[in-house]
Amino acid sequence: MITIYRSQAGSTQVADRVDPGWLKPGSGTWVWVDLSQPTGDEARVLSDVFHFHELAVEDALSEIHHPKIESYGDYLYLILHGINFQERERCFSTQDVDFFLGEQFLVTVHPGTSRTLDEVRQVCARNDRALGEGPSGLLHRIVDAMVDHYRPEADVLAERLEVLETRIFERPDAQLAKDILDLKADVASLRRIVLPQRDMVGRLARREFPLISEPLAYRFRDVQDNLVRLVDEAMLFQDRVTSLLDAHLSQVSNQLNGVMKVLTVIATVFMPLTFLTGLYGMNVPLPHFGLGEEHFFWALLAVMLVVSGAMLAAFRRRGWL
Amino acid sequence: MITIYRSQAGSTQVADRVDPGWLKPGSGTWVWVDLSQPTGDEARVLSDVFHFHELAVEDALSEIHHPKIESYGDYLYLILHGINFQERERCFSTQDVDFFLGEQFLVTVHPGTSRTLDEVRQVCARNDRALGEGPSGLLHRIVDAMVDHYRPEADVLAERLEVLETRIFERPDAQLAKDILDLKADVASLRRIVLPQRDMVGRLARREFPLISEPLAYRFRDVQDNLVRLVDEAMLFQDRVTSLLDAHLSQVSNQLNGVMKVLTVIATVFMPLTFLTGLYGMNVPLPHFGLGEEHFFWALLAVMLVVSGAMLAAFRRRGWL
Amino acid sequence: MITIYRSQAGSTQVADRVDPGWLKPGSGTWVWVDLSQPTGDEARVLSDVFHFHELAVEDALSEIHHPKIESYGDYLYLILHGINFQERERCFSTQDVDFFLGEQFLVTVHPGTSRTLDEVRQVCARNDRALGEGPSGLLHRIVDAMVDHYRPEADVLAERLEVLETRIFERPDAQLAKDILDLKADVASLRRIVLPQRDMVGRLARREFPLISEPLAYRFRDVQDNLVRLVDEAMLFQDRVTSLLDAHLSQVSNQLNGVMKVLTVIATVFMPLTFLTGLYGMNVPLPHFGLGEEHFFWALLAVMLVVSGAMLAAFRRRGWL
Amino acid sequence: MITIYRSQAGSTQVADRVDPGWLKPGSGTWVWVDLSQPTGDEARVLSDVFHFHELAVEDALSEIHHPKIESYGDYLYLILHGINFQERERCFSTQDVDFFLGEQFLVTVHPGTSRTLDEVRQVCARNDRALGEGPSGLLHRIVDAMVDHYRPEADVLAERLEVLETRIFERPDAQLAKDILDLKADVASLRRIVLPQRDMVGRLARREFPLISEPLAYRFRDVQDNLVRLVDEAMLFQDRVTSLLDAHLSQVSNQLNGVMKVLTVIATVFMPLTFLTGLYGMNVPLPHFGLGEEHFFWALLAVMLVVSGAMLAAFRRRGWL
Amino acid sequence: MITIYRSQAGSTQVADRVDPGWLKPGSGTWVWVDLSQPTGDEARVLSDVFHFHELAVEDALSEIHHPKIESYGDYLYLILHGINFQERERCFSTQDVDFFLGEQFLVTVHPGTSRTLDEVRQVCARNDRALGEGPSGLLHRIVDAMVDHYRPEADVLAERLEVLETRIFERPDAQLAKDILDLKADVASLRRIVLPQRDMVGRLARREFPLISEPLAYRFRDVQDNLVRLVDEAMLFQDRVTSLLDAHLSQVSNQLNGVMKVLTVIATVFMPLTFLTGLYGMNVPLPHFGLGEEHFFWALLAVMLVVSGAMLAAFRRRGWL
Repeated sequence: MITIYRSQAGSTQVADRVDPGWLKPGSGTWVWVDLSQPTGDEARVLSDVFHFHELAVEDALSEIHHPKIESYGDYLYLILHGINFQERERCFSTQDVDFFLGEQFLVTVHPGTSRTLDEVRQVCARNDRALGEGPSGLLHRIVDAMVDHYRPEADVLAERLEVLETRIFERPDAQLAKDILDLKADVASLRRIVLPQRDMVGRLARREFPLISEPLAYRFRDVQDNLVRLVDEAMLFQDRVTSLLDAHLSQVSNQLNGVMKVLTVIATVFMPLTFLTGLYGMNVPLPHFGLGEEHFFWALLAVMLVVSGAMLAAFRRRGWL
Repeated sequence: MITIYRSQAGSTQVADRVDPGWLKPGSGTWVWVDLSQPTGDEARVLSDVFHFHELAVEDALSEIHHPKIESYGDYLYLILHGINFQERERCFSTQDVDFFLGEQFLVTVHPGTSRTLDEVRQVCARNDRALGEGPSGLLHRIVDAMVDHYRPEADVLAERLEVLETRIFERPDAQLAKDILDLKADVASLRRIVLPQRDMVGRLARREFPLISEPLAYRFRDVQDNLVRLVDEAMLFQDRVTSLLDAHLSQVSNQLNGVMKVLTVIATVFMPLTFLTGLYGMNVPLPHFGLGEEHFFWALLAVMLVVSGAMLAAFRRRGWL
Repeated sequence: MITIYRSQAGSTQVADRVDPGWLKPGSGTWVWVDLSQPTGDEARVLSDVFHFHELAVEDALSEIHHPKIESYGDYLYLILHGINFQERERCFSTQDVDFFLGEQFLVTVHPGTSRTLDEVRQVCARNDRALGEGPSGLLHRIVDAMVDHYRPEADVLAERLEVLETRIFERPDAQLAKDILDLKADVASLRRIVLPQRDMVGRLARREFPLISEPLAYRFRDVQDNLVRLVDEAMLFQDRVTSLLDAHLSQVSNQLNGVMKVLTVIATVFMPLTFLTGLYGMNVPLPHFGLGEEHFFWALLAVMLVVSGAMLAAFRRRGWL
Repeated sequence: MITIYRSQAGSTQVADRVDPGWLKPGSGTWVWVDLSQPTGDEARVLSDVFHFHELAVEDALSEIHHPKIESYGDYLYLILHGINFQERERCFSTQDVDFFLGEQFLVTVHPGTSRTLDEVRQVCARNDRALGEGPSGLLHRIVDAMVDHYRPEADVLAERLEVLETRIFERPDAQLAKDILDLKADVASLRRIVLPQRDMVGRLARREFPLISEPLAYRFRDVQDNLVRLVDEAMLFQDRVTSLLDAHLSQVSNQLNGVMKVLTVIATVFMPLTFLTGLYGMNVPLPHFGLGEEHFFWALLAVMLVVSGAMLAAFRRRGWL
Repeated sequence: MITIYRSQAGSTQVADRVDPGWLKPGSGTWVWVDLSQPTGDEARVLSDVFHFHELAVEDALSEIHHPKIESYGDYLYLILHGINFQERERCFSTQDVDFFLGEQFLVTVHPGTSRTLDEVRQVCARNDRALGEGPSGLLHRIVDAMVDHYRPEADVLAERLEVLETRIFERPDAQLAKDILDLKADVASLRRIVLPQRDMVGRLARREFPLISEPLAYRFRDVQDNLVRLVDEAMLFQDRVTSLLDAHLSQVSNQLNGVMKVLTVIATVFMPLTFLTGLYGMNVPLPHFGLGEEHFFWALLAVMLVVSGAMLAAFRRRGWL
């Protein structure tokens, strides 16, 4: 789907095609072209009207990319990653949005639908002054919204981390190691996605490209701060997740220790007793040590009580009970 | 709460509003405005009187931030973190204090109450020459006090670390792994908080900003030294905490070894004995090897003693006893 | 085998020798010489006709090399690594291809046969305009194809990683640790091979060498993007593989815990019962507690049931069952 | 204690005060002032006579510091760490020595007594030409001696490391993990202390400060080489200590394996035997398989021998015996 | 032993002393002085004839050093490490060779005998044109040979690594952890020795020193490539060795698991059986459930077979058998 907004003298209209004359310097007009899951025909506007570099066009129309920013002389080509709200089996998947920013145009291309861009399009449909800040102002608005969508994802990771930290010490199970690995992979993804975007937005904030005005640079600095915080959190999470597996291992070993202590106490108490019963179960004349036959059972039982009591006392002294 | 101090010709008075004329160059006067948990009305002074950049104002009024320093032409905007003495469930939490430093003003904003700023305000209330060193001198005094408050926290971490190192080898328990994880998280927080502040204060010390005079730069270098030492200690702590978990694991395994040795000794001593009693408990004619029936019990017991003695000797030779 | 293509006025012919005149500036012609497993005679063209530096020639004819790029004044010497499709016992082995790039020639040398170069040679045989983009254009085409061949290898690694992650939690066995080690070595190889190539292609993309024109630089930037992504994935894989071994260890310990719980439950239930049977197997007068002899067996059995029921209830409360 | 040496025309005398005239350029004289555990009165010379910066004076008189070097225009302020030979419970503790180096003076301040400085003072007392190389020559001599004292400490660490490596494989005990942790902390201290000193001395060797002449720079380069080697060794030690804990863990697990094998062999051999004795201990008519009653005991014993022999053979085949 | 070669007009003679006149610029002659385990007298040539800096002379005559390169104006001082073929208890030890390179001399000093230098000396003795490439050409020849001697050592490490990787999975024993530690230490030594030499030779290859001509720089670049590959391999080895210890640990745990499963299976099968025999061994009237006394033994045996069959089936279902 292709959507074209034309902003002229502060007011915005929907257009059905891009007039090359609008793109001339001094035309007093600028356009926002949004290509959402473009068909081959729709995509042709990139090369035919805007004459973008063929490699950039190819990148924009394919799906998996590394965030990057490239200057092609009079326009910038950017790839950013937003949260993909469609596919969510795992913690999060991302979706690339491509931008072409020129003096008098912003072209956005996204292979799937993008919630952020749907929202911005709706604002433009309602408010004909929505595009008053020019192409780079619109770029900032979209990037800012995309970055804001990362925040709840980071919070979900933080929550999962805390749940795992509790589970380790309360009831470790075989599933736990799997969940820790999954969380670790998600934290690594977050960091891997956010890190290059931080550097990219940093380049916009440092005014490396003359298309970004100084007031806008201040605002991109704010977006960059958000990304810096996300990277920081991701690294902190990574540190903590790494410790989790070690702590889990030590906890499993602690449990094993507990299990083995129970076994050892039971075995150590009952083995001597069973030996004694075996001794007096032998088919040989058994000494009664002067005690009457009728009381001998009880005497043996008393001896057994003393033996097992001594064993248990020894274990208590070792702190096993 | 808003508190305004006006310093003129070396003496300080409390004022109830900021006269824009004071802020003009050459007015011979300067002000310190402290906004503690400001209401919306009080916060309006930032934009209406001082005309700070809207993004900086927004940052100053919101609560969670990454330490940073930014130059907005004729004023600096700084975010620093102090120890939060109110919330202390865990080892420490921090609290951000925001500074706007100009030629003739220092504005401090903190969403909660700040012990450091309360103390400085009390000094100003008692001593009308307290602000004699100008806005950047006051900035140094506050930053220095904030950094000094980190010292006892680092000492608490060092103490917890030593307690844990002792506990591992004296009486390891299931709680220990949890405490190590907690300490690790606290050490990481300390480092994460102090590291960017070190770099920030370093920029003040290197006189990157002309608002900082040379004598003040020497004094900021001293503050930076304190932060360098804190970062160093935090990294050393991190190294040691990381080893703790490994040492704990090896200690738990050592314990397990001990438990298993006890079990093995007990089982190995009693199993042959029980077998012997079983042998002579069988309901088949039993050989007496020429010994009289009445002595046979004692003969068997002697054999058992020899067998178990041999077993124990073997264990002693292996170093298990 | 030596293959020589001569491109003149846009059309390409196979030649059987290189005329030194073609290499003169302004000759309007250029050549591609491909040396596939060259014999000593064939290799002599490098020094006799092109007069390449003896060390470069020596490197080009020997087999094991680190990717590198070197400028020898008016020509570049490059070593790149492609996938070796011949030897495939392990995940992948690589094969070095050497390039000499000049204003009017491209010489490719590979000690074994190279699938990539076979393909390009076939294109040239079919299409006499295939070499229309000059030596550096041809270099880009070959390098691009070589890098594209890495993609399926990286996908195979990703697949093996996922299989291992599943196997750990489903049925860990002794073979698993070996497979993890193997995968780890393969991931490290991929990264070690791709990393220097990324930097090399980056130098071509940054137009460090005047032989690369600006449009070609854009296309090398695209190749570099592919390599950047490969390096990124390799590092992500490495992180995940490293966790695998830890997770495996914790899983083995979990299993051990399970085994020991079974043993402990069995031992704890049966040891007291065996003790009781031993007690009433002793050859001493046994108390019957007022019960008739004929019912005593059942009374004992009831006591045993109660004892073992209590044991099992205790284990269930501990969560061992 | 304050000690003042005055060097004039190549000969050295002890002085009881510093004449400010001596410090004037061209006075043809220079002084070494050594402040060992200075009293408040003695320390006043730093500010009253030499007019050092108040922050540097404060640092020099307090005890715990990070090695650093700072230029205050016409003099340098250095903090270095020497071995503290007084306190030696752990492997080593350090002691800071502060230096003020000017064109015509060297002032050394150390809160405790310093063995290195005691030695240099004794040389000066005996030899009136000992200070012939000027303040920076004396600085070099002291720094060189301080660095030389690190060498035996590093050798002690190397020795402890080797003892631990042997102990792990000979007789691991619970104390071992503690000793590894202690060694690790000591190695980290050494590195943490030596690393900044290497960088500091490197700055002297690179002639960053004009007070250091070229011949002296060569000699500081030699001191720096010693420090480079110490840092190298410390990093190598750290690597090896880190492996130690892992090796210890694997050794403990190996031991556990051995213990468990003993237990399993014993249990597996005796359990079937005990079952057989139990079988023929039952109070039911027992089949004798045509053997005479009197030989049946021996027949059973033979069966038991065969069973246990088969078990032991199985274990030997598995390599457990 | 001191050996002096004088090269004049392309031919080489052995000399018995160095004539200072030869060292004058334009003398048309140059010398190679090799000091092998020099006596004090022989060593005096360094200071008396060549007037080298005293610190360099001291370094050259002492034994343990870090590879380094230093320019003393009109001559270079280098320390390199070769393989020591004399001492070989462990994998390898190194031996330092010192070089002084001037316009008209090369002086080599080695505290022990050096196989590389012996070889070069033999070539010179046989061929009077061997020194035709001047002092820096000779330096290259020696350095190249020294670096070539590292290759077999790296191959030995690779082989030991593969043997260990096999041993872990075939027959892990207590010795294995020790061997892994030893290999790790050797790999670290290799890297520690080669890394600074790579950087040193890199400086020669980059023509940082005018004594190295451009053709020679190309050849040093080749030597540097060899060193780069060695460093790369060492790092790869280090990665793999580190994984080995983890894999060994997991393998030991796997083994333990196997041992414990055997024990648990045995105990779980025989404990209920022993309980049953105990039950019918009691001296109380036993119920026969309507079966004739003479068949009861077989009925009990059948019950036992069913019980143990059920147990074994349960274990098989769990995958323990």
